[in-house]
Parts: sequence; C-alpha cells; structure tokens
Amino acid sequence: MNLDIQKPTLLVNEEVCRANISKMATKASGSGVVFRPHFKTHQSAVIGEWYRDEGVTKITVSSVEMAQYFANHGWDDITIAFPYNPREANAINELAQKIKLNLLIESKDALAHLNQNVISELNYFIKIDVGTKRTGVDIDHLDVLPTLISSKNPAHHFVGLLAHAGHAYQILDQEKAQSIYDSSIKILHQAQEIIGTDVFLSYGDTPTCSRLSSFSDVDEIRPGNFVFYDLTQHSYGSCSFDDIGVCMVCPVVAIHPDRNEAVIYGGAVHLSKDYVKSSPPSFGSVVNCLTNGWDSEESASLIRLSQEHGIISGSTEYISSLKIGQLVGVIPAHSCLCADLQPYYLSLSGQKISKLNKF
Amino acid sequence: MNLDIQKPTLLVNEEVCRANISKMATKASGSGVVFRPHFKTHQSAVIGEWYRDEGVTKITVSSVEMAQYFANHGWDDITIAFPYNPREANAINELAQKIKLNLLIESKDALAHLNQNVISELNYFIKIDVGTKRTGVDIDHLDVLPTLISSKNPAHHFVGLLAHAGHAYQILDQEKAQSIYDSSIKILHQAQEIIGTDVFLSYGDTPTCSRLSSFSDVDEIRPGNFVFYDLTQHSYGSCSFDDIGVCMVCPVVAIHPDRNEAVIYGGAVHLSKDYVKSSPPSFGSVVNCLTNGWDSEESASLIRLSQEHGIISGSTEYISSLKIGQLVGVIPAHSCLCADLQPYYLSLSGQKISKLNKF
Repeated sequence: MNLDIQKPTLLVNEEVCRANISKMATKASGSGVVFRPHFKTHQSAVIGEWYRDEGVTKITVSSVEMAQYFANHGWDDITIAFPYNPREANAINELAQKIKLNLLIESKDALAHLNQNVISELNYFIKIDVGTKRTGVDIDHLDVLPTLISSKNPAHHFVGLLAHAGHAYQILDQEKAQSIYDSSIKILHQAQEIIGTDVFLSYGDTPTCSRLSSFSDVDEIRPGNFVFYDLTQHSYGSCSFDDIGVCMVCPVVAIHPDRNEAVIYGGAVHLSKDYVKSSPPSFGSVVNCLTNGWDSEESASLIRLSQEHGIISGSTEYISSLKIGQLVGVIPAHSCLCADLQPYYLSLSGQKISKLNKF
Repeated sequence: MNLDIQKPTLLVNEEVCRANISKMATKASGSGVVFRPHFKTHQSAVIGEWYRDEGVTKITVSSVEMAQYFANHGWDDITIAFPYNPREANAINELAQKIKLNLLIESKDALAHLNQNVISELNYFIKIDVGTKRTGVDIDHLDVLPTLISSKNPAHHFVGLLAHAGHAYQILDQEKAQSIYDSSIKILHQAQEIIGTDVFLSYGDTPTCSRLSSFSDVDEIRPGNFVFYDLTQHSYGSCSFDDIGVCMVCPVVAIHPDRNEAVIYGGAVHLSKDYVKSSPPSFGSVVNCLTNGWDSEESASLIRLSQEHGIISGSTEYISSLKIGQLVGVIPAHSCLCADLQPYYLSLSGQKISKLNKF
C-alpha cells in the first residue's frame, strides 16, 4: 500500500461498497419495494452518489443535522428515523420547506407538539416497536393508533408505519432471520388492522435485509450498515469477510515481542469502544494492507483500546514480522460508530472522501 | 436550566473545573514538582487558559495534532505522551522548530528513525512501563537504556524517564494508590540506577494523583482526566460526585412507563460506548438539570446506548415525571472519550467553549 498515511485513517473500498449497494438495491427491486437506505453509517455525500447510481432517490438518516447535510447535497426525500425531538422544531420547520421530510411519531404528546410548533408541510410515520424495546408504540398499546393517525394540523400527513427490528442484531441463520422478519410483519399487520386500512409499511435493519431475499409484505426497506458491514455484522452472519468495505489503517508505534503484543496509533477516538462479544472481546480484526485492499491476518487481533492506543495480540511470528512505522489494518467492530469518528475517509487510490462533520 | 439547547450538548461547569485544576496545582507545588497537566481530556484552548491562571506553562498531549492545536494557541512547551510515530516525522520536525517539544521513545528502532528523519532540536523521554503493559520499556529490558539515552543526532536530547501508571485505573483506597505509586517509583529508580545518574522523572495518572498528596520522589506530574472527572473516576474513588465538571444534556424523545424506561437523544456518538463496570453496566449517571448546574437523580441510570439513542431506566415515579422535550443530564462514564466527540462545549451561562476539531 503506497498511500501517504500519517495517522489512523479509514480506508473505504469503493468497489466492495458499490457491490453491497447494488446487491441490496437488486433485492429491493426484486421484491417490488422502495429502497430507502439509511445513510447514518457513512454520512458522506460522496458515497451517497454511489447509491444514486443504483437509482436511489429516497434516504433515511438519524438526526436533523444529517438531514440538513444531505438536503444541502441534493437529497430531497428524507426520513429522519429517530423520534421527533421537540427542541428541534424550528430546524425541522425550515428543512420541511425545502424537501419532502418524513418524521417519526410515537406518542400523543410528540404529535401535539409537532402540530402546534411546526407549520411546514411534512409527513410522519408512526413508529411501531416490533420487539426491540427501544422506541415505538408497544404491541400492548396499539389502541393509541387511531389518535396518532389523526393529525390536528392539516400540514402534517400520516403516511404509514415504520419498524426497525433491532433485536435482529444477533447471530442469525436463515430460519431465525425469517422468524424475526415474520413476527415483525405480524405486529405491523395487527397495527394495520387497528387502523382499519392498509397503510404504507417501512421496515429495515441490516441483519434481516442481508439474510433474506423477499420483502413483499412491506413497501420499503431501510438497511444502513450493509454498505460498509463490519466485524459485528460478520459475526452475526450478515456478510462474508470480503463484503466488508472499510478498514482502519494504523501505524505501528511499539512492539513487545516478549508478550506477543504490538501497539498501534489507533484507539477509542478512531475506532470507538464498541467490540464484538467474542471471548475474548475483539475491538477489531487485524488485516494486512495490500496494494489494492487488505487480507485477513488470522493470527492477530485487537484486544484492548485506550484513547489513542490499540493493543494487538498476535502470534510470535506475526509480532516479530512487524516494524515500527509499518501500517496495519483493523476491520472495525462497528463501522457506523467508527465512521462517525472520522473527519473524512480515504479511497484505495488515496482520494479524500468528504463526509458530514459535526457543527 | 434556561439554556437554548436543541441537541445533546456537553455542559462544562467552569467553577468545578477551576477548583479541580487549582487543587492539583496546589498539590504539585506543595511537593515541589512541575505540574504538566494532560490536555487530551478537554482538548480546548479556552479551558487551557484556566490552567494558565494557575501558573501552568507546560502541558502534555497525546497526539501531534493536539500539539499543533495548542502550539497555535500559545503553548510553547509540550510533551506528546505517545510513542514516536515515524509517519509523522515531518510534522514533528516542523512543530519542533516552533516550540519546545518533548517526545517519547521506547525502542532503538524508534530512536534511530527519529535521529535520521527529524533535524529540529527536540527533547525525548524514555517511556518506562511501570506495570500497565501497554507501552514503555519493560522492567526485564532496562538494559536497553544506555543505548536509548545515546542519541545519534546531537539535536535530540534525552531528558528523563516518563511513566504512566495505567494499572491505577481501578477501585483504589489510599493504601492501594500509595502501593501503586511506590512500586512505580521503585521501577523508575531501578531504571535510573542502570543509567547511572539521577535523571528527571515524569509521572502521572488521575487516580493516584487524586488520591495522594506527596510526589516528591518525582520531578513532574501529568494527570489529565481530573479537570472533568467522570463516573468511572468516581467509581474508583478518585473524586466526589460534586467534583465532576461535565454533564451531557439530552432531550427526552420517548417515554415508556410500562417498562420504566425513557429514551433520550444522546447515544454512542455523543457519550462514547465506554461504561462503568458495575452490575448492570452504566453508560452514564442520570442527573437533574438545575439553574446553575445539576444534581444527582439516584433513581435512574443510562442502561443502553445505540448510535443516537440512550435508554434510561428509572423508578416509576421518575419516569412518569418526564415530559417529551425535557432536558435530562447524563454524567458521562468516560469524560475524555465523551469530550473528544463534541464539536464544542457549553458553559453554564450558555457560552460556547471552543475545542480542537479533527481535520
């Protein structure tokens, strides 16, 4: 790898990411459903164009800030898949004047606040909890739905039900993935029955969308992580190792052959503190940097992280092969959090790929 | 709290932080040692001035980027307490022309690279591993020291030994803290004996520097986290709850009384995925926002985090007291990682406190 890298840098393999996008877009069109990918994983207008090349025109984000960023980059149909935050009413009002904005509502209080404090035309989904126990109307409270579909503000249009199967984030085989999908659909259908009419159904998460092929029970899918994948998704069985599109490249700064360890410049502020719940936990998988990508280095793994340091444990042979200043690759445990930490990404040919930076 | 907060925002209590700085500065001067605080925790030129008001003129950072930032803000004596990274030789060379720069060396290879690739005048410490098993010359390899003190480049001056007692990051009482400090000093003295002369000794970590009062065995202390403290340090016994100087303020976006949970806008991208190893693990302690600070809310804690969501579990009474849009405070599990994630901080009076942003 001849890249001019001085400090921890997230490499993005465009070919792999484009293949991941294409595969998911093909699945969606095969099922006749809208493909509204979640952009919270990459947060990059440049990478957004790779989706546009696959015909994507509608996207999902997880914050008003991300929606503003992508609206400024030509995306005009955006769902903020996060509960309506009353404190951002003004920003939402402004944004909804520019683009087709879809929000999430799950309580009477949130809807009342929205109705009273936002005047722009916008759409809202009702979030249904299909088993994640994070947000959404619980299955025991679906009787609130008739109230929630009745917006008191004629500018705010109820457009459908939205679900995220967060409980699919576990080791899955085909059967288990199908079972989580089926049970989610069952809950969405119960909600529809209470509403009394068929409404638009939006569904999405990377594990089931990766595992399954047919989504014809719903109208839209919203997976996000699949563009990059990561070690966690690999451990769940959502992807092969070769489907992973990102790699953190880190300089080796210390070598300790006695304890078969090396230290890289690459810590929690570059990779996040998330880990794969293996034994021992893994903060990342070590790979060898090649001219045009990376390949697996099975004899080593990232066992500890502090703010700027990463500790690699490896075989005697691997550790003794390292040199101070050498670049080592790390496949992140969680690419969404890792990507969020980067000021930019780097392509395999050394081009900077710009992304949202917090402001 | 009348602050105009729309999204997760880290509040900094200047009075508390200044008191923490003053207390540590007084300890250092009482022991007759140099106080060279680690600025990796706050990464803010504004907060840096609070130290200057206590007479601080020398600082520690953990990256070349941070050193550049603080050099641009008038700090001219900086130690980068991270192993020399050969890939940043050019940036180091440039920086060392502007300020008094101190680096860390722990191997012949690193010193040889430095000697050959950096021409500017600079100082270097030899890092000694006093038990952390992260970086530094191991106690079994102190025989390398005579080679490491002999710089082949007359511009590079060996100035002393540096240690960080990372193994002090655990629940400590006075006795245990003293024991870790004493054993660290013993190892530094062994290293001095091998060098054959008394050399400058730099020591530092927040737990022992918080617990102990006398550091006369060393010449310099470098604690960092103490300016903010956090839930982890509180759990170690390094500080009282009232000594914690930062609080993440987050809007409530969903309430689920049935399971005694509420969801805040405030997730892993705001707080980091670090947690206090209690049972169950805690990603933060919930506090009530007051007009001029915050106070403990013992009946609730932050039990789960995803990218943007935080899940609070609380008593029936607490959860039912919450309203959508209300601000809730969270004391971060790890203030260094949390602070690193912020684009800026906010003072209790609503002033933006600027900090380093990655570039």
